[in-house]
Amino acid sequence: MINQSMAALGNNRSTIRELFEYGNSRAAVVGRENVFDFSIGNPNVPAPDAVRRAILEETAGDPVALHGYTSAQGAADVRRTLADDLNRRFGTDYTGDCLYLTAGAAAALSCAFQAIACPGDEFIVLAPYFPEYKMFIESGAGAKCVVVPPAVQDFQIDFAALAQALNARTKAIVINSPNNPSGAVYSEQTIRRLAGLLAEKEEQYGHPIYLVSDEPYREIIYDGIEAPFVPQYYENTIVCYSYSKSLSLPGERIGYVLVPPQAADSADLYAAVCGAGRALGYVCAPSLFQRVAARCAGQTSDITVYQTNRDLLYNGLTEMGYRCVKPQGAFYLFPQTLEPDDRAFCERAKKYDLLVVPGTDFGAPGHMRISYCVQTETIRRALPLFKKLAEEYGCK
Amino acid sequence: MINQSMAALGNNRSTIRELFEYGNSRAAVVGRENVFDFSIGNPNVPAPDAVRRAILEETAGDPVALHGYTSAQGAADVRRTLADDLNRRFGTDYTGDCLYLTAGAAAALSCAFQAIACPGDEFIVLAPYFPEYKMFIESGAGAKCVVVPPAVQDFQIDFAALAQALNARTKAIVINSPNNPSGAVYSEQTIRRLAGLLAEKEEQYGHPIYLVSDEPYREIIYDGIEAPFVPQYYENTIVCYSYSKSLSLPGERIGYVLVPPQAADSADLYAAVCGAGRALGYVCAPSLFQRVAARCAGQTSDITVYQTNRDLLYNGLTEMGYRCVKPQGAFYLFPQTLEPDDRAFCERAKKYDLLVVPGTDFGAPGHMRISYCVQTETIRRALPLFKKLAEEYGCK
Repeated sequence: MINQSMAALGNNRSTIRELFEYGNSRAAVVGRENVFDFSIGNPNVPAPDAVRRAILEETAGDPVALHGYTSAQGAADVRRTLADDLNRRFGTDYTGDCLYLTAGAAAALSCAFQAIACPGDEFIVLAPYFPEYKMFIESGAGAKCVVVPPAVQDFQIDFAALAQALNARTKAIVINSPNNPSGAVYSEQTIRRLAGLLAEKEEQYGHPIYLVSDEPYREIIYDGIEAPFVPQYYENTIVCYSYSKSLSLPGERIGYVLVPPQAADSADLYAAVCGAGRALGYVCAPSLFQRVAARCAGQTSDITVYQTNRDLLYNGLTEMGYRCVKPQGAFYLFPQTLEPDDRAFCERAKKYDLLVVPGTDFGAPGHMRISYCVQTETIRRALPLFKKLAEEYGCK
Repeated sequence: MINQSMAALGNNRSTIRELFEYGNSRAAVVGRENVFDFSIGNPNVPAPDAVRRAILEETAGDPVALHGYTSAQGAADVRRTLADDLNRRFGTDYTGDCLYLTAGAAAALSCAFQAIACPGDEFIVLAPYFPEYKMFIESGAGAKCVVVPPAVQDFQIDFAALAQALNARTKAIVINSPNNPSGAVYSEQTIRRLAGLLAEKEEQYGHPIYLVSDEPYREIIYDGIEAPFVPQYYENTIVCYSYSKSLSLPGERIGYVLVPPQAADSADLYAAVCGAGRALGYVCAPSLFQRVAARCAGQTSDITVYQTNRDLLYNGLTEMGYRCVKPQGAFYLFPQTLEPDDRAFCERAKKYDLLVVPGTDFGAPGHMRISYCVQTETIRRALPLFKKLAEEYGCK
């Protein structure tokens, strides 16, 4: 008598959540310090002190104004501040009316997908991809999710495979750079080539193909590289952003959808995003953290810790014989597993209380995701265990 | 190329939101103090000081733990505290595992509806009803919304009409007591009779009929009356709650779904609520305010102001010739309009910058909703304008 597909979604938690809960229960048995939980992307670097100060300053003000409903799309002054910040950084000309504030990136993606999905539509995701995309597209927006296999040599885009996947039913393609789980950052060349291909296909099929750019890791990037700002390369871009990672606020659920005025039908598209938020029950993004985001515009947590962790883990694992594309962003390493069956490998890793996520969950079998948003010391102590695990597979 | 029904939802804002925005734009012209905005249920009584203290105390702790992801259903200790509070007040035996924390009541309702809706299902709402119900049921859960007309003499339930509406396709009935917009509180007799009727129909049709009890106004109740706690009268109850009104936190989006263990298929039902939250992109309820809710369990804002407002407005309007059922809860008055066309009446009220919502929007034509969660002074200054408006209709 209940909805069985919802019950199934509730009972079959994502592998990531499952591992996270397993880690919690293991910690109760062997002690938190002996569980090497690399499963979840919960930032371990604290929010910058500006967040705490912003909370204190806002809380000193009028509680009725602070905790009251904002406009459904977010407080006007907050949206203006965030648009100005984008303009300052990327030379764009956005107004606050281009932004729809959301309860994080998952909400932003849900609203964006439902805003554009029509019956029969296909959405393309590029492996390796965040597994909840498929659920938001299929269970949420009722569209078909088409997966393009990974370009395992560098985790850029397999354009031949993508070209094959595009067809007249393609409504959108979802990209995520810096990427979860590979840590890859799409190069300017990749973005240019993608924009060119999509423009060509738009012309061929006679309708817009939206590029949904999921950017929660936009600022978490290493080695001095710069990630291209996607709307500058392709007009029909919808940006979904979250402060979860950049400000270490994943539990607070604050982010936005950016609908650039250059996008096709941008006014209607923006309205549809608002309508989707309404239909999904979002009402407004959490009001205190709307203001916190505005006060902290342009700031980030101290991401140097992540770079330290990446270097330690990447160098350590590759020396042991693990093979891995060096990530340039986000806080994930995505090495190959030491046997083709990545699920079996990850199960075996549990013997050492190493919790890593099978690549199959991201559409990239034969890999594992290691979230390195953990204490550096945890990595140091985990490396000998990764070595023991490697030795089981004959690595010296 | 976008989803037109979402664009329509975005473009055709609810009348309430529309009036709220109109009020803001009018305020810019004639001054905030000259706009008598009775349109929106944005509490004007500040959050109790316990909220501010809770924020400060939590913010003094570890930001990684405070702002990190919680379990999808909410932090375990928070859920336990909130369950204990319910047990203390209502003599129940809930555990934290009966609660699924949400981003407010709208999210709770969306999750509850999607958890139980199957193709072909009907959901019954009782006029006058919160207009977004229809949208959550139809655009959200894809079920049919059946409206039972109001019992205008006392805004309890028209049981004859309800009995007619119930049929084998009825999956659930949604109630809201204390009621938005009528302010009515269902008596114990009403709840008993409702429970009896539903139990009888469950037996007749051979399947559960869920009673979704939307209770954001549970604690906002006057004249020393007690509202029956619905799960104690009917086993297949799902409670949707929000701290928006009781703690004056509507912008912060914090509430819960309560799935009592007595409900049919309660484990699967709870899983389906979790699954719906996942499919809708909710991830977890805002983490800081999960903790604030736990720290403030059992407390409310100072609701005596609302009682003062109710008395002033009810007495004032009825003396002028307006006819109104005296509300016993929430912060709305729902008088008859002075002409049958309530939209025309509410338009005419705008001449005096009196912003009230037509009853038609709540399925009860010939009425208007007046939200009295405003400064008492605002009501005092508005009464002469309501009198002038009444005089236009020949009231003396």
